[in-house]
Amino acid sequence: MEVVVPFSPTDPKTRLSGVLSAAERREFAGVMLEDVLDALSRTRGVPEPSVLSTVSLDRDLDVDVVVDDRALTPAVNDVLASSTEPVAVVMADLALATPTALRRLFASDADVVLAPGRRVGTNALVARHPEFRVDYHGASFVDHREAAAQVGATLSVVDSHRLATDVDEPGDLAEVLAHGAGAAADWLRDRGFALGERADGSVHAVRHDE
Amino acid sequence: MEVVVPFSPTDPKTRLSGVLSAAERREFAGVMLEDVLDALSRTRGVPEPSVLSTVSLDRDLDVDVVVDDRALTPAVNDVLASSTEPVAVVMADLALATPTALRRLFASDADVVLAPGRRVGTNALVARHPEFRVDYHGASFVDHREAAAQVGATLSVVDSHRLATDVDEPGDLAEVLAHGAGAAADWLRDRGFALGERADGSVHAVRHDE
Repeated sequence: MEVVVPFSPTDPKTRLSGVLSAAERREFAGVMLEDVLDALSRTRGVPEPSVLSTVSLDRDLDVDVVVDDRALTPAVNDVLASSTEPVAVVMADLALATPTALRRLFASDADVVLAPGRRVGTNALVARHPEFRVDYHGASFVDHREAAAQVGATLSVVDSHRLATDVDEPGDLAEVLAHGAGAAADWLRDRGFALGERADGSVHAVRHDE
Repeated sequence: MEVVVPFSPTDPKTRLSGVLSAAERREFAGVMLEDVLDALSRTRGVPEPSVLSTVSLDRDLDVDVVVDDRALTPAVNDVLASSTEPVAVVMADLALATPTALRRLFASDADVVLAPGRRVGTNALVARHPEFRVDYHGASFVDHREAAAQVGATLSVVDSHRLATDVDEPGDLAEVLAHGAGAAADWLRDRGFALGERADGSVHAVRHDE
């Protein structure tokens, strides 16, 4: 199996602009990537991942980095088309991913295994069917479910809150603070973020003075 | 074991006011309740649930309804204090709940089993420790994790996107449309809701003319 973690380090996580500076967003995206790579490396039976990056990286990682400047969908589809093995694709912003959660992704032997993301995305997948291709645009989980059916692939869906939580919006930071076990949660705390409550009782990541 | 589904039918789901009328919100809350009761009834080994309602219900349900007009926390804590059996508490707005997901809640034999909800809530729990009490206010998942530790209870956490998805906000409706297998998804489709995409590529439940 080939395990690929797509990563786009140029102006990442723009929907966090209201709470993190551009430099902080780049740093936070890198910390989340390292959390994902670390969780994968500790997942029993999973081969070493490689990073599929849109540009060459200035950080030292313990894994191979393949640079492909195309958009996510064609870059991943090129891996799917050229690989002679099953391919797993795990997003780089799954700050809650643990080996236990990831193990469930790899434990199924279905032709296509999907871990849905919030907002109807696809946060992780395993493709064992030679004709399956991705389309990450829009409601990708629904599209991938249909794409699997269209090529006659058996499908399994991983029901995981940890894998469903990609970190894109300020509301997602509260999930990292509450459930994160890796460096991303520490990084947020070091920058003054803590769980806080608004007047209506809703819970958010609130930034205090550092 | 005693299985309780708290329900508050008076002006429910106010955060959906922008997309559903008051009458629709009452109806939708009732449809979700019936989905949860149906999923529980189809979960192997789980006794018949009862509804813990703030007012008497004008709808016919196949299960017992206990009326307690207090707030959620004291009403549930009264059940915990008075029951001589383990108690399960499952929220009434888990429109994605399936027997497979619920089975994981009941499969653990830990003293306290928690299924976190988005926004750091607690969407379902099983309490087998006589001293464990709930506090649903604020970041209840974190509080319940601490409360379990304080009474010396063993803890298990169920990592489920289906159980983590309580339906409170317009953004949650897209989850129901994409993943819902029960009447709530059909109810939304019958009212003209469908998955749609905004200019930035994000996915939402969009309401078309009926």
